[in-house]
Amino acid sequence: MSDRILATYLIETRYPLEQAAAAMAGEQSSGTFRAIPGETPELLARYGARVERIEEIGEAEGESLPFSRPPKAEASARPRRAHVTISWNLENTGTILSSVWSTVLGNLFELHHFSALRLLELDLPDAFTEAYPGPAFAVEGTRRLTGVHGRPIVGTIVKPSVGLTPEATAELADRMISAGLDFLKDDELMGDPPHSPFARRFEAVMQVIDRHADRTGRKAMYAVNISGDMDAMRRQLDVIEKRGGTAAMLVLNSVGLSGVIEIRRHASVALHGHRAGWGLYDRSPALGMSYRAYQKFWRLAGVDHLHVNGLSNKFCEPDDSVIASARECLTPMFRRPDRPDTVMPVFSSAQSAVQAEETYRLLGSEDLIYCAGGGIVAHPDGAEAGVRSIHEAWQAAKQGIPAKDFARSHPALAAALQAFG
Amino acid sequence: MSDRILATYLIETRYPLEQAAAAMAGEQSSGTFRAIPGETPELLARYGARVERIEEIGEAEGESLPFSRPPKAEASARPRRAHVTISWNLENTGTILSSVWSTVLGNLFELHHFSALRLLELDLPDAFTEAYPGPAFAVEGTRRLTGVHGRPIVGTIVKPSVGLTPEATAELADRMISAGLDFLKDDELMGDPPHSPFARRFEAVMQVIDRHADRTGRKAMYAVNISGDMDAMRRQLDVIEKRGGTAAMLVLNSVGLSGVIEIRRHASVALHGHRAGWGLYDRSPALGMSYRAYQKFWRLAGVDHLHVNGLSNKFCEPDDSVIASARECLTPMFRRPDRPDTVMPVFSSAQSAVQAEETYRLLGSEDLIYCAGGGIVAHPDGAEAGVRSIHEAWQAAKQGIPAKDFARSHPALAAALQAFG
Repeated sequence: MSDRILATYLIETRYPLEQAAAAMAGEQSSGTFRAIPGETPELLARYGARVERIEEIGEAEGESLPFSRPPKAEASARPRRAHVTISWNLENTGTILSSVWSTVLGNLFELHHFSALRLLELDLPDAFTEAYPGPAFAVEGTRRLTGVHGRPIVGTIVKPSVGLTPEATAELADRMISAGLDFLKDDELMGDPPHSPFARRFEAVMQVIDRHADRTGRKAMYAVNISGDMDAMRRQLDVIEKRGGTAAMLVLNSVGLSGVIEIRRHASVALHGHRAGWGLYDRSPALGMSYRAYQKFWRLAGVDHLHVNGLSNKFCEPDDSVIASARECLTPMFRRPDRPDTVMPVFSSAQSAVQAEETYRLLGSEDLIYCAGGGIVAHPDGAEAGVRSIHEAWQAAKQGIPAKDFARSHPALAAALQAFG
Repeated sequence: MSDRILATYLIETRYPLEQAAAAMAGEQSSGTFRAIPGETPELLARYGARVERIEEIGEAEGESLPFSRPPKAEASARPRRAHVTISWNLENTGTILSSVWSTVLGNLFELHHFSALRLLELDLPDAFTEAYPGPAFAVEGTRRLTGVHGRPIVGTIVKPSVGLTPEATAELADRMISAGLDFLKDDELMGDPPHSPFARRFEAVMQVIDRHADRTGRKAMYAVNISGDMDAMRRQLDVIEKRGGTAAMLVLNSVGLSGVIEIRRHASVALHGHRAGWGLYDRSPALGMSYRAYQKFWRLAGVDHLHVNGLSNKFCEPDDSVIASARECLTPMFRRPDRPDTVMPVFSSAQSAVQAEETYRLLGSEDLIYCAGGGIVAHPDGAEAGVRSIHEAWQAAKQGIPAKDFARSHPALAAALQAFG
C-alpha cells in the first residue's frame, strides 16, 4: 500500500474521459474554476490529486442521472462509463477521517460533468492505524464476551420496534435467553423515548441477563441503542459499563463519523454498528458509494459489528451483494497482524431459520451475528421455539445436513421452515 | 403545528398506493415483516406511524431505480408516483434528532416496494426548540459580529484549496481584507494537515484580521475549518474563542449530526455549515431528501450559516433550486418569535461579480453571505480588485442600476464582467 490515499470511482460522462477525471482531481484538491495565481507548478505537483488510472468500460444507453451539462461539441454522443482511480498525498488531509470523507466524496457527486459517479474502492495508508484505534473487540472479542464459539452468535431485534414497556421488553428477553439466545439488540427506531427510557429498559433487561448468566455461565450481549446527542451517549455508556453491559448500538448514519469516533474513544464495550439510512448511499447504482468503501470508515473509527442485511431480505438488496458485504467485514483492512480489524457481519432483515443453510454455504464462515426479529417472535410455537429453530438450522448447516432432513427430528426447525419458508 | 412529527415523501411504486404507504408506516414504527404477538391494537394506535395523506401525481415511464420487487399480479403495470405524508407520535422518538433521522429516513430507501423514494418535507413539533438551541447568531448576530449592515456579507474561500502555507494564506487574506473583504473561509478540503496546521494558519490570519480591525473598526470573520474528531474540534474551538475569532466551519456531512450538535453546545462563535457531500442526498431526483428537509436538522442543531450553491454554479444544480434553498434558510422553522432561527444562506461555487444582480433580483433580500474564490483571486487586476468588483456589483444591484451601466464608472466591476461573464 502506498502512502497516498487511493479512491476508485465509477463515472459516466459525455466529456472526454481524461478531461472528466481531471475535473474530479481538480475539484478535490487545489483547484477552483479558474487557474489562479497561487497555484504554482510545485504546489500542484505536491498537493494536486493525481489521476492514476482510467479504464473505459463501455457506453451507457442514456444518462443515468439528470442535470449533467455535456460539452456542446459532444452533446449528441452517448455517455461513456469508466473506472477512474484518483490518489492524494496524505499531506493533503493528514490522518483525519472527516477530512478524508470530504476529500474522496465532497463535491464530486455534484460536478456537472457526470451523469453517474460512485465511489467503489478506498485504500488508506497504514498511517491511519496510528490515528484511529479500529475495533476494540472485533470477532474474537465478541466471542469472548458472549462465550459463543464454533457457531454464529444467534440474536434478536426486540420487536415490536416501538411501544413495548421496559418490563415487556425484559419479559421477552427472558423467554428468548431461556431458549438459548446469545445476543439482543434494540431496533434502530428505539432510542431513549418517554415510553421506554434508556435507563429503565437497560436495567430491566440486564437483570434478566444476569440471572441467566448465573445459571449458564454465559452472558447474553445486549446492544442497547444509545444513538443521540454526545452528552447523552456518554452518560448512557457510563451506565452500561458500570452495570456490566457488554455492548452499545450506534446508528452510524444518524450519529455521524465524529460522534462514532468519540464514542469509541470513550467506550470499553463492543460497538454494534447499524447502517439504517444505507439506501442513501447504495440505492442508486449511479450514485453514492459501495459497502466496500463505506465500511472502512466505520471499522477504522472502531465499530465491532456491522450490519449487512441478510439473504432473501425484505429490502432491495440482492443476495450476492449481501454476501460480498459480509466478506468485506471479514477481510483485514491494513497490514497490521498485531491489530485485528475484521468485524462481525450482522445478518438481519426478515431472517429466520430458513436462510441459515444458504448463508453458511455462501459465506463459508460461522463468524457472524445472525439476528431475527419476526423470525423468532412470530414462530408459531412462540419466541422460545423461534430461538431453538435458528440454533437447529445452524447445527444442520454446520453438519452438512439439509435443513429439511434435520427438521424431521427437530420440531422447532420444522415449524419455522413451514411458517417462514 | 401538531404534536406529531410529519414527513412528506415522493414515492414511485407498482404496489397499490395504500399498500405501499402502509409498508412505509409499518417499517418505520412498530412493524416487522410478520404480525407478532406483542403488537396489540392499543400499541399500534399509539405508536404506529399513521398515513395522513396520499396524493397520486401520475405514472412514471419506467422504474427510476432498479431492484424494486413489484407484486406479481401487477408486474406489468407502470409504476405510479405519489406524495405521501406520514406522521409519528412524538413519544416514539422523544425530542432526539438522531432518533428523528433514523425514523424519517432509516430503512425507507431500501424497501423493495419502491423504485423511487425521497423525503420532501419535514415538520417537527415546537417541543424540539426546548431540546435544541438553534442558531446562536443567525442573521442578525452574524451582522453584529462582522459589522456589516444593509448589504450582503462579501466573502472568499481561500484558494488554492490545499497547499498554501499559513503565511501565504495570511498574505492573501491581508490583500483581500485591505480591499474590503468581510468574511473568509477555508475550503472544505482544508482541515488540520501537516502543511498548514490549524493553529498556525488560524493565528497567522487572525493577526491580519486584528490589524485591519484596528484600522477600520470592523472585524473580518474567519470561518476556519475545524471538522475532525471531537477532541480536536473542541480544542480548536477553545483556541478560536480565546484568540477572539468569531466563527468556525463544520463540514456537516463529514462530522455528522451528533458531532455538530455537540460543537454547538460548546461554542460561543458563529458556526458556518458546509454541505460538501450534498450530492449524496440530492443528485438523484428519485432518492434522498430535499434541501427543505435537510437544512432543518442542521438549523435546529444550531448552525448559523448554510451553503446553498450559487447562480450559474459549477455544479449540476439549477438556479431555481438555489434560490429556493436560500429562501428556506430565511424562513422561520418554529412559531417562536423569541428564538430567531433563520440562518444566513451562503452563496458559493463559481461566484463572481457577475451573479450579484440576478441573485438580488431573484432572492429579494440582502441577507446572505456571498463567497467567491476564483472570482476574487483570478480577477485580472488581482485579488483586491476582485473584492472591489463584488462590492460594486452589489451596490449596483441594490440601487437598481444594471451592472454593465454601473461598470462604466467602476473599472474593477468592468474587468470582472469581462473576465467572468
